[in-house]
Amino acid sequence: MKLLILQEKLKQGLNIVERISSKSLTLPILNNILISTEKNFLNLSATDLEIGVRWWVLSKVEKQGSVTIPSRLLSSFVNLLPNGNVALESKNNNLSVKSDNYKTEIKGLSAEEFPIIPTIADGESISLDSLTFCRDLNQVADIPVPSTTRPEISGIYFSFQKNTITIAATDSFRLGEKRIFLKSSSSLTKEYSLILPQKTIKEIVNIFNEKPGELKMYFSPNQIMFECPMEETSHPQIQIISRLIEGDYPNYKEIIPKKYTTRLILDRNEFLNQVKTASLFSGKVNEIKIKVEPKSKKVNISSRSSELGDHQSFITGKIEGEPVEISFNHRFLLDGLQSIKTPEVIFELNNDSGPGVLKSPNDETYLYVVMPIKAT
Amino acid sequence: MKLLILQEKLKQGLNIVERISSKSLTLPILNNILISTEKNFLNLSATDLEIGVRWWVLSKVEKQGSVTIPSRLLSSFVNLLPNGNVALESKNNNLSVKSDNYKTEIKGLSAEEFPIIPTIADGESISLDSLTFCRDLNQVADIPVPSTTRPEISGIYFSFQKNTITIAATDSFRLGEKRIFLKSSSSLTKEYSLILPQKTIKEIVNIFNEKPGELKMYFSPNQIMFECPMEETSHPQIQIISRLIEGDYPNYKEIIPKKYTTRLILDRNEFLNQVKTASLFSGKVNEIKIKVEPKSKKVNISSRSSELGDHQSFITGKIEGEPVEISFNHRFLLDGLQSIKTPEVIFELNNDSGPGVLKSPNDETYLYVVMPIKAT
Repeated sequence: MKLLILQEKLKQGLNIVERISSKSLTLPILNNILISTEKNFLNLSATDLEIGVRWWVLSKVEKQGSVTIPSRLLSSFVNLLPNGNVALESKNNNLSVKSDNYKTEIKGLSAEEFPIIPTIADGESISLDSLTFCRDLNQVADIPVPSTTRPEISGIYFSFQKNTITIAATDSFRLGEKRIFLKSSSSLTKEYSLILPQKTIKEIVNIFNEKPGELKMYFSPNQIMFECPMEETSHPQIQIISRLIEGDYPNYKEIIPKKYTTRLILDRNEFLNQVKTASLFSGKVNEIKIKVEPKSKKVNISSRSSELGDHQSFITGKIEGEPVEISFNHRFLLDGLQSIKTPEVIFELNNDSGPGVLKSPNDETYLYVVMPIKAT
Repeated sequence: MKLLILQEKLKQGLNIVERISSKSLTLPILNNILISTEKNFLNLSATDLEIGVRWWVLSKVEKQGSVTIPSRLLSSFVNLLPNGNVALESKNNNLSVKSDNYKTEIKGLSAEEFPIIPTIADGESISLDSLTFCRDLNQVADIPVPSTTRPEISGIYFSFQKNTITIAATDSFRLGEKRIFLKSSSSLTKEYSLILPQKTIKEIVNIFNEKPGELKMYFSPNQIMFECPMEETSHPQIQIISRLIEGDYPNYKEIIPKKYTTRLILDRNEFLNQVKTASLFSGKVNEIKIKVEPKSKKVNISSRSSELGDHQSFITGKIEGEPVEISFNHRFLLDGLQSIKTPEVIFELNNDSGPGVLKSPNDETYLYVVMPIKAT
């Protein structure tokens, strides 16, 4: 392998694929990036066997070939090189890197040992707007927690129906659900339900978050692939392929309340701040109490700890329905409030023991269900 | 105690004194901030018994008194309160905090248990420019390392002579020395030598770093005090008082080379970058090799690790003197280069085993001595 590439381009690619390579002690090759040529493209790939990434760039290829090089070392190294042309050449299993004032030989491992990263050649695909999709994913991406007993809820659920995607995530204390409407040109012929690992979703957000443009999603029975095209060509620039989590996602729709006994419309930032303040005095159980007084149009937020002290604040807003007194874990309430970015939030309550629902008056596509702390 | 104060002011003060309060398990009172009134001033104080801090602000004092309150809790709490007036009132050992929509009682400890923070009432003082002094301290503040066997070099040495302060710090592998010239109006009648704890210096930098204006330094046999005045009054706003480290500072001047065999003037950023790049391949001993070839006006920087690979780069610059080949620990070289902010640096070498000296062509007040790695 022998080629010339601009430092800026190489750095860009390495910063993307480096994220995926793992720190495996049992399989050292997974710490490496596969550098290979495909005609006049340089290709960088990495995988942790759960997610795989491929990145391409046009370059002056003089000789085809491939090699694998430790990912963090190569990426740190190329980040520090001066702008301008970099000559890469494989020598046995090593990589020689030359630029203006630099001459370096980095030890690698044989490209033949590198695992094959699958691809999805046929099957249906849909087209998304990259930035919007990342913002949508962010509303649920942090909700799941790793679970060995219930692996299915450690992932994020996707349900595809014609031209709607519904995404859901839960950790059994709270649930987020987001609906995404596809362009009509991108509707599906079949329905798909699948569970994606949380890590995949976070990497998708990290990689495509600041990359405006089209993002394509390809389906296969065991895998899913995200792809964005290279500017001014039809060749892909980045492909992320991920395994799916097996199992059936719980019928979460059951726990979304169909009605409410009390409904609040509050200033989002003020409510958020008061929940944060109350959290300081909530003690070990994270409990904060919400008391709604429809007559005085006041919501009282309080917390108490025998060690720290006694706290209360109130917020006024639009209040409908019954008076109610109910306790929540402040962490779950805060996460919900933080996932809604509009100036006002709706908070629907169901007596003193039913789940609460947070949503935005300006956005019907998102809701966040939070379970109360039961009185003991 | 009963008073009114603006949230913004209180927040400002708490963010300063909170830094000093400790996380002591044996003496819980040290986790607290002492809140007290002094006529029409509110005073906040904290100490870890090594450093003490006092902060004052004018406020509407209705009733004199004092109380101590857990520092992190109070500071996090006040940070979250809305702008505007806050009413503070002590109730037994608790503090009641009331503002627009908030009503909170925080548990505290009796002010009588709080240690007395000493002050320096008489003795000499000098006047410094706060921002310049912090920038000067930053050139040496990170050099010392904690040492129980040689506590004197774990601190930063100050030598005061008439209108010059010389500051030095070392960890026995490298040494930084900075000279500061005082305004003639601020000259001293006696000479002082003292060793300040590294923590004190770092707190001084953190607190006064973004606070332009005058900083006064007061001397006493066992303590030193830094003070800045309150705007538009002669009352102090902040006082930091610190114990000194006992012992004699080593005669470090001995190790500063008086001459050199080779002298380089290099582009600072390029040199810094090449040292960083070489550091990636330096292996466990952190060794990078510098080879100076006066004939070709080239400095070759190289490193090698049997596991990672083989690296070299070169930099051109003004070179005087003998050819030389010498090894340094890249960490110590980098720290020195980072403490010099000018576009060019001077690097003076002494054969293949003498200490190197980094300085700036534009600033004779600072030098950084770095010991080489001896060939084994």
